[in-house]
Amino acid sequence: MKKKVILVILDGLGDEYIPELNGTPLEYASNETVTLNKMANEGMCGLVNVIAPGIPPSSDTAHFTIFGYDLSKEYTGRGYFEALGANIPINEGEVALRFNLATVEKSNNLLYIRDRRAGRISGKDAEELVRALQKAISERGIPAEVHHTLEHRGVLVIKGEGKLSRCVSDVDPHESNVPVLKAMPFEEISGEELEAAKRTARVINEVTKLSYEVLNDHPVNREREEKGLPKANIILSRGAGIAIKLTTFREKWGMNAAYVAGGPLYKGVAKAVGMKEIYVEGATGTVNTNLKGKIDGVLRAIDAGYDFVFLHIKGTDSLSHDKKSREKAEFILKIDKVLDKLLEIDDVVIAVTGDHSTSSRMGRHIGLPVPIAFYSKSVIRRNGISKFNEVQCAEKGALGVIKGSDIMPMLLDLSNRTMEYGLRPSPKKVIYAGAFGEPLQL
Amino acid sequence: MKKKVILVILDGLGDEYIPELNGTPLEYASNETVTLNKMANEGMCGLVNVIAPGIPPSSDTAHFTIFGYDLSKEYTGRGYFEALGANIPINEGEVALRFNLATVEKSNNLLYIRDRRAGRISGKDAEELVRALQKAISERGIPAEVHHTLEHRGVLVIKGEGKLSRCVSDVDPHESNVPVLKAMPFEEISGEELEAAKRTARVINEVTKLSYEVLNDHPVNREREEKGLPKANIILSRGAGIAIKLTTFREKWGMNAAYVAGGPLYKGVAKAVGMKEIYVEGATGTVNTNLKGKIDGVLRAIDAGYDFVFLHIKGTDSLSHDKKSREKAEFILKIDKVLDKLLEIDDVVIAVTGDHSTSSRMGRHIGLPVPIAFYSKSVIRRNGISKFNEVQCAEKGALGVIKGSDIMPMLLDLSNRTMEYGLRPSPKKVIYAGAFGEPLQL
Repeated sequence: MKKKVILVILDGLGDEYIPELNGTPLEYASNETVTLNKMANEGMCGLVNVIAPGIPPSSDTAHFTIFGYDLSKEYTGRGYFEALGANIPINEGEVALRFNLATVEKSNNLLYIRDRRAGRISGKDAEELVRALQKAISERGIPAEVHHTLEHRGVLVIKGEGKLSRCVSDVDPHESNVPVLKAMPFEEISGEELEAAKRTARVINEVTKLSYEVLNDHPVNREREEKGLPKANIILSRGAGIAIKLTTFREKWGMNAAYVAGGPLYKGVAKAVGMKEIYVEGATGTVNTNLKGKIDGVLRAIDAGYDFVFLHIKGTDSLSHDKKSREKAEFILKIDKVLDKLLEIDDVVIAVTGDHSTSSRMGRHIGLPVPIAFYSKSVIRRNGISKFNEVQCAEKGALGVIKGSDIMPMLLDLSNRTMEYGLRPSPKKVIYAGAFGEPLQL
Repeated sequence: MKKKVILVILDGLGDEYIPELNGTPLEYASNETVTLNKMANEGMCGLVNVIAPGIPPSSDTAHFTIFGYDLSKEYTGRGYFEALGANIPINEGEVALRFNLATVEKSNNLLYIRDRRAGRISGKDAEELVRALQKAISERGIPAEVHHTLEHRGVLVIKGEGKLSRCVSDVDPHESNVPVLKAMPFEEISGEELEAAKRTARVINEVTKLSYEVLNDHPVNREREEKGLPKANIILSRGAGIAIKLTTFREKWGMNAAYVAGGPLYKGVAKAVGMKEIYVEGATGTVNTNLKGKIDGVLRAIDAGYDFVFLHIKGTDSLSHDKKSREKAEFILKIDKVLDKLLEIDDVVIAVTGDHSTSSRMGRHIGLPVPIAFYSKSVIRRNGISKFNEVQCAEKGALGVIKGSDIMPMLLDLSNRTMEYGLRPSPKKVIYAGAFGEPLQL
């Protein structure tokens, strides 16, 4: 019998050794976690190199890989996911970039970055500045749109007649006290793609220059200056992504999929692959998210007949970026308290893992593997793990080390949805049972 | 000094946790196995993902991979191995498919499968039906042959003038109560290959329809009906394979190879790569096989000067498919009792592993890794393994997790037959010591 599948991603779950905790935050928490330890003990564990050892994945490339998509062939760029997640209208072929409102200082015709987040500007100030920029863009007839999203963040959409490309470098140098960069086509492209990238880069550079022109002396910024706040006098864009119809998750794996998530990026990735949203009141993608409500959302999705439910919890990562190791451990305990309900579902396979490790000492993604536990009442090889954490998963995991791209095939196998390698009852490449061909007519 | 190599494949060796055994069948057996535990303790162990985590290999793709062949480039399809293993004459360029005699019911011009094995028909009934079908095929001048092999099984060979292709989907949907499928060219092929696949599919579909026409009212089936037995009124073919000269095992690895096997498929794969058969009386490929005789066969092969001997034992897999966990454990004990003789051979490297895991709870191949032990008096790193099983290999194996394609390079290295990566004393790609080029003439 085919089982249902629940994939729980605790963002940035893995971590490094924190002296004050005498272990990683998860190791520290695992002295008290109950459900996670049960899943590890009665299930199978291992470590996951989501992309490869030493490669710290971004959250979108990590999720895309875990969902079974090939980064080298199918990745469309982060901006597209961001736009989808923020409900920004985007048409096929258009390119989206996320941006920050930032503070720059002009010197010798270059714009030096002083604050990549313009003092974490937000609310009406940010909205008004983006609106002003949009007005100028429209007046000049530049084929682009800017949308404010959360706090200092926004999305830039490149439109227009000609073919566009996501293969353009970031304007944002991801560092302070260096000049704002020129968007440029990737070196490795050529032909039509290169022409499209040149066109896309031209529009991005035009909008970037215009943003300084419009925003530097804008009344909002003059007011901010008077208050001693940094001016938000440029938009720094990055992560160009193109809106392209992807092979859906259902086409790839034969499962109807739904998601429960708070953070816009995760919603965006899930939407891009055709998963349906299960809306949960108070699911904010922050540490104050409605954890109980999210678990109920998963149960609702299962009841509604979805085969696959993706549950995303962001707080673990945010606390790591804020260098709050102890709070990360405490948040893991909070999650552990609500997870038990999932174990009561019949005929389900559950995997719990992270999309990457995040160092709560350094506040950045790191390339160390993440622990994983597969829990199911079938196809399990028991390992002697008593505590679900990075160290025990490495020492005693029944699975050893796997890659991010192995997770979906494993879930398919554990849920009785797979076919033996080489079987081909369909002209299409068959991975999952049920992908049948045409009947023979007499 | 170069050592000889013995590769022992216990088919479907790995398994899942079986509550009644408080472990996997191998884990349970390893409380009593002697030789396997000695090999693990004095040798080196690890886990093998034969294809990749979560991908349950078929037996032929598994063996082909373990022998060091590249599935994406060199795999010729299962039917070819089946034909070779059953000693069915097949010429280069012809396509073979295995088939089942099956029971179908006609409804709205479609044929619904009621029993994929026609009540496990065998003997004279099966022979006579296949003969009747062959007669009709010949009368119509269809370029094909059908051969009965064992029980409800047979092999269909597609012949003819034009180029043929193995890239056609299965007529057998691998499920009951769904319609018989139309053979169709794979989606990913084009050009000449596509034309060849269309031609091949046309013949397969013609034979399939004809089989219903000829068999449905055949006297044998009328008699079966009267006895309350299911009619064998169609042949369901699958696994098209093309007869192509493969790079031989000797060309690839520099070793003269022989095999000891009972099951036709394994004989077929071994033959296809040019291994020589060591015939063993009573080697049946069943649980009643002549285990002692097979070990003697390996010793004979070593004495005869073969560098590499492949020993295949099928019973472990068959018992798993029959969901007999305890019997699987007992069969492993029986194997363990005869393996000791292999350890007495001087200057030999022995590897024991499975081609895949098979769940003896569900009776199907699963995508969990298989344990492996390399035993040799050289190039060994001892691990603290006291019992050869899936769990100890995961927890304490000196090798960690390897892939199926790593086994041959490891055996070459352990047997002093390898060359450092990059060394090139031959215009050919050099892997093994002894692959030399032409001497310089003065």
